Amino acid sequence: MNFDWLNSPPHILDSAAESAARERQAVLTKPPGALGELEALAIRLAAMQGSARPTLDSIQVTVFAGDHGVAAEGVSAFPQAVTGEMVKNFARGGAAISVAAHALGARMEVINLGTVADIGAVSGVLHQSLGAGTANMVHEAAMTEEQCARAINIGRQSAERARLAGVQLFIGGEMGIANTTAATALACALLATTGRPYAQPEWLAGPGTGLDAAGVAHKAAVIERALALHRVAIGDPFEALRRLSGFEIAALTGAYLACAKMGLPVLVDGYISTAAALAAERLCPGTAAWFIYAHTSAEPGHARILAALDARPLLNLGMRLGEGSGAAVAVPLLRMACALHNGMATFAEAGVSAA
Amino acid sequence: MNFDWLNSPPHILDSAAESAARERQAVLTKPPGALGELEALAIRLAAMQGSARPTLDSIQVTVFAGDHGVAAEGVSAFPQAVTGEMVKNFARGGAAISVAAHALGARMEVINLGTVADIGAVSGVLHQSLGAGTANMVHEAAMTEEQCARAINIGRQSAERARLAGVQLFIGGEMGIANTTAATALACALLATTGRPYAQPEWLAGPGTGLDAAGVAHKAAVIERALALHRVAIGDPFEALRRLSGFEIAALTGAYLACAKMGLPVLVDGYISTAAALAAERLCPGTAAWFIYAHTSAEPGHARILAALDARPLLNLGMRLGEGSGAAVAVPLLRMACALHNGMATFAEAGVSAA
Repeated sequence: MNFDWLNSPPHILDSAAESAARERQAVLTKPPGALGELEALAIRLAAMQGSARPTLDSIQVTVFAGDHGVAAEGVSAFPQAVTGEMVKNFARGGAAISVAAHALGARMEVINLGTVADIGAVSGVLHQSLGAGTANMVHEAAMTEEQCARAINIGRQSAERARLAGVQLFIGGEMGIANTTAATALACALLATTGRPYAQPEWLAGPGTGLDAAGVAHKAAVIERALALHRVAIGDPFEALRRLSGFEIAALTGAYLACAKMGLPVLVDGYISTAAALAAERLCPGTAAWFIYAHTSAEPGHARILAALDARPLLNLGMRLGEGSGAAVAVPLLRMACALHNGMATFAEAGVSAA
Repeated sequence: MNFDWLNSPPHILDSAAESAARERQAVLTKPPGALGELEALAIRLAAMQGSARPTLDSIQVTVFAGDHGVAAEGVSAFPQAVTGEMVKNFARGGAAISVAAHALGARMEVINLGTVADIGAVSGVLHQSLGAGTANMVHEAAMTEEQCARAINIGRQSAERARLAGVQLFIGGEMGIANTTAATALACALLATTGRPYAQPEWLAGPGTGLDAAGVAHKAAVIERALALHRVAIGDPFEALRRLSGFEIAALTGAYLACAKMGLPVLVDGYISTAAALAAERLCPGTAAWFIYAHTSAEPGHARILAALDARPLLNLGMRLGEGSGAAVAVPLLRMACALHNGMATFAEAGVSAA
């Protein structure tokens, strides 16, 4: 792990562009504040892009996939084979995120960081395998140090490719059967409080792809076992990420960190993405200044992870799919915020009387 | 008023298309229900369009404008001249709804039903004036019977033009200084309960374009005077609409009624539009089956009018502009719901294992 890179600060927001955008919002032909969150979005994007007239023509969607050893504990409603099958579905255009990315005209990249099933070479999938899934966190660390560092670096490189391609917004997605379990374990560690080495799993664990109440209770108990095993080490965010998460979550974390360091705005998706976002913020405080939060997931613990980031997501549509799908659905709101900001007439231009 | 037309029933929803859409949602490559409200939206649009694969390529935005006699009571933060000035701004493309409609590729129509200022002929504005604004409701009925019937009919005709043009969704917008006062008075009448001829204005009245607390209290007192004056008559929804609302609100009501009778889905905007939607539902029960609610306005009473319609809007972004702008911002969600519904692969097509 290159900790020099990790500790390099996030890009500085452009306060001059922010002020110019705020001043423009105040003279557009509407009552002050009448566009609500759309005004704040345009102003934030101005600060992030260093332009008083932000735009979002070009968008990157990168989906990271990987399997999880903890799936052996029976914590998912779906069989583990689905991870690899969905990787193919992403590449062939049949998954929700594929359809949404196409609808947005977004660049899409699918990265397989390691599935249990060997799916071979698939056109449209970048194979950067770190192994046949992670180890089972209830017995050992999910990743070796090298695996975790490589996963972070794969995420970093994907963000750097996106930046080189000239995109204006980065969306990370994920796929991995059992990854709500991993994300919950990670979040519990990151949400430790004084005198408590980790938050209670019951506080965050939810149905994921469709567990019933007994399944959720079992999942929480599995997470508790993992947290208890690793409790001495997980006060360190890198160790929490390495021991409790997974390839795709570490890659997301690396991508988010890289975006913030390069000054590329991130639209954070749902439960798992937000756990990765929290890990990124803990690894490098200030990173979250580059995050916009797309939606509140139906996964019940999401609101609590969001609260730790002081996040106020744009949408609350009961979505709980992951893949980056909730972020993709929110993109048109950002684009509309930019269109209104750039396209509306001022009171002076339109000859409209102010209040 | 042609009450035969008013009493003709709403179009019947297509239950076969609805069932087919529901069955399709169940086999798309995602956990059941994981797209949340987007699944319900696709299924509702299928029922409305009579197609298991609904689409929203073509959208109508019609903005109705008119002035209000009650503005003389000092109930708005903006001068009355703004209504006419904004009509020109709509037509020239500088208003929020103009920019949003353009971004959506929507057809846009602006109808001036009567402003105090004579703005003359404006390119892109349909002049169908019913007078130089309504009468002041605290002294007399806002509209004569003929004016109200004509306003409803202007709305009806606009919806019929939209239908003839082949659009798949109707958005109504409004502009009229003091029209949150009119909409509140109307809603208070429509929300009468046993033993109370109208709901208390304080329960619904809000800042509109930007009143302070004293201004809101004054506005509520003005509305109370109007309600007290008309209390004997306003148990009848047509009389409530005629005496307490305004040209653009009656036109919106007529447009909504016509959409429902023709089977054209309506995306309802904010506070004023929802008051018109409630009036339409009271005038012809069942009309609301054709309504989709775009957003919850920052205007505090909006949630209460929505509750009376059992409405669960898609967005809550603190918007309070009107014009149809909140509805326009929600359109991409409907389009994304359709794109996902139509474009995603099924488990069988993708070779993905089900739960």
